[in-house]
Amino acid sequence: MPQLRKPYLLYLGDAQHPTDAKTACGLRDWCPADVVGEWSLPTAAVSVGLPRCSPAEAAAQGAGSLVIGIASVGGKVPDSWLPDLEAAIAAGMDIVSGMHTRLTSFSSLVAAAARHGVTLHDVRHSDTTFPAGTGLPRPGLRVATVGTDCALGKKYTALALTRALEARGQKATFRATGQTGIMIAGSGIAIDAVVADFIAGAAEVLSPANDPDHWDVIEGQGSLFHPAYAGVTLGLLHGSQPDFLVLCHDPTRKTIEYRPDFPIPPLPVAAEQYLVNARVTNRNVRLAGVSINSSSLDDGAWARYRAQVEQEMGVPVCDPLRGGMDLIVSRLLGV
Amino acid sequence: MPQLRKPYLLYLGDAQHPTDAKTACGLRDWCPADVVGEWSLPTAAVSVGLPRCSPAEAAAQGAGSLVIGIASVGGKVPDSWLPDLEAAIAAGMDIVSGMHTRLTSFSSLVAAAARHGVTLHDVRHSDTTFPAGTGLPRPGLRVATVGTDCALGKKYTALALTRALEARGQKATFRATGQTGIMIAGSGIAIDAVVADFIAGAAEVLSPANDPDHWDVIEGQGSLFHPAYAGVTLGLLHGSQPDFLVLCHDPTRKTIEYRPDFPIPPLPVAAEQYLVNARVTNRNVRLAGVSINSSSLDDGAWARYRAQVEQEMGVPVCDPLRGGMDLIVSRLLGV
Repeated sequence: MPQLRKPYLLYLGDAQHPTDAKTACGLRDWCPADVVGEWSLPTAAVSVGLPRCSPAEAAAQGAGSLVIGIASVGGKVPDSWLPDLEAAIAAGMDIVSGMHTRLTSFSSLVAAAARHGVTLHDVRHSDTTFPAGTGLPRPGLRVATVGTDCALGKKYTALALTRALEARGQKATFRATGQTGIMIAGSGIAIDAVVADFIAGAAEVLSPANDPDHWDVIEGQGSLFHPAYAGVTLGLLHGSQPDFLVLCHDPTRKTIEYRPDFPIPPLPVAAEQYLVNARVTNRNVRLAGVSINSSSLDDGAWARYRAQVEQEMGVPVCDPLRGGMDLIVSRLLGV
Repeated sequence: MPQLRKPYLLYLGDAQHPTDAKTACGLRDWCPADVVGEWSLPTAAVSVGLPRCSPAEAAAQGAGSLVIGIASVGGKVPDSWLPDLEAAIAAGMDIVSGMHTRLTSFSSLVAAAARHGVTLHDVRHSDTTFPAGTGLPRPGLRVATVGTDCALGKKYTALALTRALEARGQKATFRATGQTGIMIAGSGIAIDAVVADFIAGAAEVLSPANDPDHWDVIEGQGSLFHPAYAGVTLGLLHGSQPDFLVLCHDPTRKTIEYRPDFPIPPLPVAAEQYLVNARVTNRNVRLAGVSINSSSLDDGAWARYRAQVEQEMGVPVCDPLRGGMDLIVSRLLGV
């Protein structure tokens, strides 16, 4: 697993809409101590509220990498960004990108990186070769976030759970499986970019043997109920061999996002389906709790919904943004 | 999907053990009309019983490709094979390989292929970009073979089912997902070599929209109960959107092959788990039958086992090598 060089300068290019800057916001919120500032083209209409800082200034402050913090249309890196990226390289910084277009497809960047001895990190892509999964037990405690759908809080829940475990004095590591998570953690594996045969093997590499009382908190990907991505979800689940699952859900989703013909099953059915599959590599896996993105519910509705799901599922129900993960952590710790 | 150029010359290299020639045997048995003969080094100790035929002789008989028909230790192509491969290229033949080492990693082969205008096919690898799965319904009938484990008859069953459908006057196409299957069919997708995010999408490409009365018979891969490969299995299942499943099993296997700690579930549990997952993309999917590799059973034991499984599962039970697939075909055709 490559290790990214922190702290970061967040690059916003020519972003026009605040939602384009999702990655930059994630980094600002989850690893503020690792971010020296933001930079963008004069045409940009978006800021994430950090001090403006040119590549040269950021390097002078010790920044190790310029991170592309926006998602452009089609995941393309436009030529207009290249001067800023080249300035960062010239100042000795690595470049980190989660875009579809590889940084290494720009010969000017490749040449500049070679000249200045820095690295271009395309974290959406995987050039690493992984072994096939072994399924063998390994020491260490592992909890995985899984979802009824994509993009409803699996990363956020895993990050919040890691913090909450640390706050209780536990040794805990967030294990990133997607671009933003990898940037936040500084390392990880873009699990959906791995060759299909090696998904479970890559997941084993991501959460290796550890101290018996150490927690790996594994960021889930996709959903078993998603017609495109369930293979990734299952391979990641098998390779992670989690001792506990936290099921993530957004009550406004009745069907898979953008796919109205694909219903999301009731939570007990979804949890059981995850547990049945997880038992293939860990017979003792248990559901530790349900993590809800409750932003659509007012306080009264959230209290009612939470009580109902708690009764239905028999496990604690939390929203990491509304009261935190402590009840689920207590269940993980058996106290 | 690349189209392989038939007929084939089967190349056995320096094979020492008959089991090394599994691929060559598969081609000899399943597409004998597409094979002109076999060739090997003087040091080889194995034959698959076909006429010996040098690359030049094979080309003179119209052979389109030399196919590497053996699996060497570690999947490596030894340098000692190169003169024969270069002779085939010089005679105007493509080279087809299912080895781990890519043909394209040999600069002499790449140069020779360019010089003679032929193609090097590394069918174990995938350089094609596939779209994400859509999950959208598409016309045509599809049946997929699925297994309680790897390597117990999914390919064989799919080939036999295709033949049996054709024998009943049906339009049917075998859809290959592994190296040997691709060589037999002349096309297909090595589904385990696809980038994880696109497994289901590649499966949709493999079995595209077709005539409403046309059968695609899809070769399954891996197993939902295999700790390394279940992600591939699930993505292929979702993208195939099968109307029917045929569950393949070998009664001597109580645990996953080479992984004694991973039990194979009882057949009704295995079938239900496949159906639950398949319903994500086709709510009307049904089990059409069970295909048994019964080679370990004498006639009496096979009759008893078959009756027992038929009763337990409520569907026809066949061994393609022992009485054929006709009962399952009848169920597919609803007659």
